[in-house]
Amino acid sequence: MADDRKLATGKIPKDVLNRLVLTCLGTPSDRVLKGPKIGEDAALLAMGDRIIIAKANPITGAESKIGWLAVHINANDVAARGGRPLWYLSIILLPENAPESLLETIMNEQHEACCDLGISIVGGHTEAVSGLQKAIVSGFMLGEVSDESKITTDGAQIGDAIILTKGVGIEGTGILASDLRHKLVDHVSEAQLDSAVKFLDMVSVVPEALEATRIGGVHSMHTPTEGGVLNGLLEISEACQLGFTIYQADMPIHDETKAISDALGIDPLKLLSSGSLLICVDPNRTKDIIRGLGKIGVKSNVIGMITHGPCVVIDRDGIERAAGEVLQDELFRILESQ
Amino acid sequence: MADDRKLATGKIPKDVLNRLVLTCLGTPSDRVLKGPKIGEDAALLAMGDRIIIAKANPITGAESKIGWLAVHINANDVAARGGRPLWYLSIILLPENAPESLLETIMNEQHEACCDLGISIVGGHTEAVSGLQKAIVSGFMLGEVSDESKITTDGAQIGDAIILTKGVGIEGTGILASDLRHKLVDHVSEAQLDSAVKFLDMVSVVPEALEATRIGGVHSMHTPTEGGVLNGLLEISEACQLGFTIYQADMPIHDETKAISDALGIDPLKLLSSGSLLICVDPNRTKDIIRGLGKIGVKSNVIGMITHGPCVVIDRDGIERAAGEVLQDELFRILESQ
Repeated sequence: MADDRKLATGKIPKDVLNRLVLTCLGTPSDRVLKGPKIGEDAALLAMGDRIIIAKANPITGAESKIGWLAVHINANDVAARGGRPLWYLSIILLPENAPESLLETIMNEQHEACCDLGISIVGGHTEAVSGLQKAIVSGFMLGEVSDESKITTDGAQIGDAIILTKGVGIEGTGILASDLRHKLVDHVSEAQLDSAVKFLDMVSVVPEALEATRIGGVHSMHTPTEGGVLNGLLEISEACQLGFTIYQADMPIHDETKAISDALGIDPLKLLSSGSLLICVDPNRTKDIIRGLGKIGVKSNVIGMITHGPCVVIDRDGIERAAGEVLQDELFRILESQ
Repeated sequence: MADDRKLATGKIPKDVLNRLVLTCLGTPSDRVLKGPKIGEDAALLAMGDRIIIAKANPITGAESKIGWLAVHINANDVAARGGRPLWYLSIILLPENAPESLLETIMNEQHEACCDLGISIVGGHTEAVSGLQKAIVSGFMLGEVSDESKITTDGAQIGDAIILTKGVGIEGTGILASDLRHKLVDHVSEAQLDSAVKFLDMVSVVPEALEATRIGGVHSMHTPTEGGVLNGLLEISEACQLGFTIYQADMPIHDETKAISDALGIDPLKLLSSGSLLICVDPNRTKDIIRGLGKIGVKSNVIGMITHGPCVVIDRDGIERAAGEVLQDELFRILESQ
C-alpha cells in the first residue's frame, strides 16, 4: 500500500491522481477516443457516425444555487469539446431530515439551467443520506460532436495565443459574496456584494465555446475550475506537454473580485473560476475570435501564449516567476478557516 | 412552496418524486426515447443508428466494497435495458483527511468490476469534502442497444410470468453481514456470516439480463434495489399501470438471508436487493429462460404473474393481502437504529 497520506478538502493532488486513479481504468477500448487525463474536460466516445461527449462533476463547495451550478459546470465541459450539451442526469444527496423545499429548490434550479441551454434531464437519483451535513449534487452531462468539430485540451500548439473570457475567479467571487456576506460586509460595499452575488449568472461558457468553435482556428479549449485560472493553465500545460507565458497585467479581473480577494487575502488567480474559458488559438485568428465573442456579449482578451516551456507568469512589474502547482483552491482554504 | 415535510434517510417518497422531480425535466426532446419515470431503470437516448443507455446511481448505504458496488448496480440497470454496459464515470467523495488508501481501495474495486464486465472507465472526479463522514461513490454508466433489442420496464403485459433470479435481499444480506457482523455474531453462525458476506459477489445481473434478452420473449426487465423485491414489483406495476399476484412460497430466499432477517427482525422482501433481476416474460417462453439462465449458472424461478390489478401478495398460508408502498428499505431502517 502506498504512503498513506491524508487528503485535504478539495480536488486530490496530481500525484495521487496519477498514481491511484489514472492507473485504474477498467478494460481498454479503442472506442474511447479521449479518456481520463489531467486537463481534459470530458470524455470522447465513438458511437457510430458521431462522438458522444461525457462529463461528471459534483458541486460540493457552494451553499446556494447548487442545482443551477451542477448543470452549468458540466455543460461547460461538454461545450469545451466543441459540442452541444444535450442530456443531463444528477444524483442529489440531501442531509437526513432535509425539508422537501430544499429538493424543490435544487430541482427548479436544474430545470431552469437546462431550459436555458436546451438540455433534457433524462435520469438521476435523489436520496437523503444519514450523517450528510449539506446537499451535494453530482451532475452528469452528455453531448455530441462530429469528428471534424471535436476539440481537446491537448491540441494546443507552440505559438498559440491564449484567450481568457470574462475574468478570473468568476464562480468563486459569486460563492464568497453569497456564503460569506456577513464577514465581507465590513470590507466590501453592499452594492459590490450585490453585484458579486450575480456573478453566478455568468457561469455558463457554453455560448462562447460553441461560438469560438464555429469561428474556427481553435486548437484547444479548457474550462478552468478548481484552483482557478492559474491551475487551468497548468492543466493545459500538463495535457499538451508544453509551457506558457502569461502576463498578470493582461489578466481581466472584475472590481468585485478584486475587492473580495483583497478583503479575504486570497489570490484571485487561484480562485474557483467556472464562467471563464481558456481558448488556445492560431494567433492569426485571435482577432476574429475576440470580435466574434464580443458580438454575443462575451468580453475576452489575450493573456499570453503557449511556449516550449516552462510555465511562466510575468507580474505587473515585469518580473518573471515560475507558475507553481496550486495545492488547494482559495475558496476551500477560506471556507475551511471560517 | 409545497408542504415542507422532512425527508427520511433513503430514496425519497414516490409522491415527492412525482411532484418535485418528474415535473422538472428541462427542455423536452424527441431524442429522449425513455426519460425519468418510476420503475424505469435507465434512460434511452437516440443517437444516429443506435440507442444510448444512460444511468446514474450512488452507493451511500454500504461501508465496504463501495467502488465495486457502484460499478455493478449501474451496469445492472444498463443491462436491464437489453444492452451491454460500455463506459463508466464516477464521482468519489471522500471524508476530509481520508487516507489515500481509501481512495486506492475504491479505485481498485471499480477497476476490477469494470474489467470483469469489459467496461472502460472514461471519466470522473475525486474530492475530499469537508464535513463528510463516509465515502460516497456516485456512478454513471453508459451502454448501447439496438432499437430491436431494447427493453423497458413498462413493456410488461397482462399474463406475463414474473421470473426472479437468485433470491431476495442479496445485496442487503451481504452489507448487513459485513457492516453489522459484531451484532449478528450472537444470533447467526460464523459460517453463515462468512457465506453471507460473499453475497456481494452475486450482485451483477448483467450476465442474466443479456442472456434473457438473447433468448427472447422478454417484455420487461427491472432491477429491484432499494425497498427490495417487493418495491421492485411495485415499480413495475407503476411503470406499466398493471397489477401483479405473487406467491411468497415461491419466493427464493437463501438460508443466510433468512437467518440475518430473523436475527434483526426485518422483512427480506423489503431488503436492498441488487443481484436479483425481475423478468416479465411471455408465459410460453418461461421454461426457455429459466433453462437458459441455469446454463450460465443463474438460478431463477417464477414468483407470480402480471395482472389487470391490484398488486397482491399471497402468503405461505394462502392468504391474499394487498402489497403496500415500501416507505423505507429495511437496510436503512436497521442501520439508523444502531
